[in-house]
Amino acid sequence: MERVLRALAVACVAAAPMLLPATAAAQFDKPEDAVKYRQSVLTVMSNHFGRIAPVVRGQQPYDAAQVRADVAIVSMMSKLPWSAFAPGTESKGARPAVWSDNAKFKQASERLEGDVAKLVAAAETGDLAQVRAAYGAVGASCKACHDNFRNR
Amino acid sequence: MERVLRALAVACVAAAPMLLPATAAAQFDKPEDAVKYRQSVLTVMSNHFGRIAPVVRGQQPYDAAQVRADVAIVSMMSKLPWSAFAPGTESKGARPAVWSDNAKFKQASERLEGDVAKLVAAAETGDLAQVRAAYGAVGASCKACHDNFRNR
Repeated sequence: MERVLRALAVACVAAAPMLLPATAAAQFDKPEDAVKYRQSVLTVMSNHFGRIAPVVRGQQPYDAAQVRADVAIVSMMSKLPWSAFAPGTESKGARPAVWSDNAKFKQASERLEGDVAKLVAAAETGDLAQVRAAYGAVGASCKACHDNFRNR
Repeated sequence: MERVLRALAVACVAAAPMLLPATAAAQFDKPEDAVKYRQSVLTVMSNHFGRIAPVVRGQQPYDAAQVRADVAIVSMMSKLPWSAFAPGTESKGARPAVWSDNAKFKQASERLEGDVAKLVAAAETGDLAQVRAAYGAVGASCKACHDNFRNR
């Protein structure tokens, strides 16, 4: 049984490049360009996500427009990094599981996108309690993915 | 006369930190965080700007929705890097003129934002000729700023 699963996993990994949109590979001339791009996207996302932290912790007054602006950046960034994790773009910061357990990685990326969509909706309400709850869920999503797929 | 100008320049540089929004400095714990942030923003902007190049050159079919999506990312990114060029955040990639001739740098950043706004409008029309013209203007804006303020 385990052997069958392993064979299936190998077949899936082998098939993965064909599952990528044809444009994904074309967006980057070299693997290191893909690495730099995804790291940049995640840096921008993390920075603007982090700017909201003191607000949800009550250490800074709640400026609904500012939170919406930061959330809009987080939302846009949350859609971008995944196509840059194409096969052949391994990097120090990414664990091999990104590619060897790509279905789980994809699931984690979709969880993040879903949680960010809820944060966008919460920010629209202008209700800090809703923002706080949705913010926590996104943070948990980031952490879960980093725990499994990121090298520090 | 030259001495007066130099004294004025020194005074302006000294005053510059006070001209920054109070939040700008607070957004980054350390100067290197600001450097990493602005480089990341510019990497994402450059990547999505570059994706449109083969379209305006006629090497790829014009997909109006895709161009609008890339332009939206360029537009959002074009507003972000400037506050991260605070005094005390000098880096290898940035020439001293960013700080010593900050008024000119600010002007260059505003020119870019203006040109990108026109590219957004052009992308909305769905007319490739308009996109091409606006794209060229943004490219010239990037180049002018890099020629004066970027170390390679």
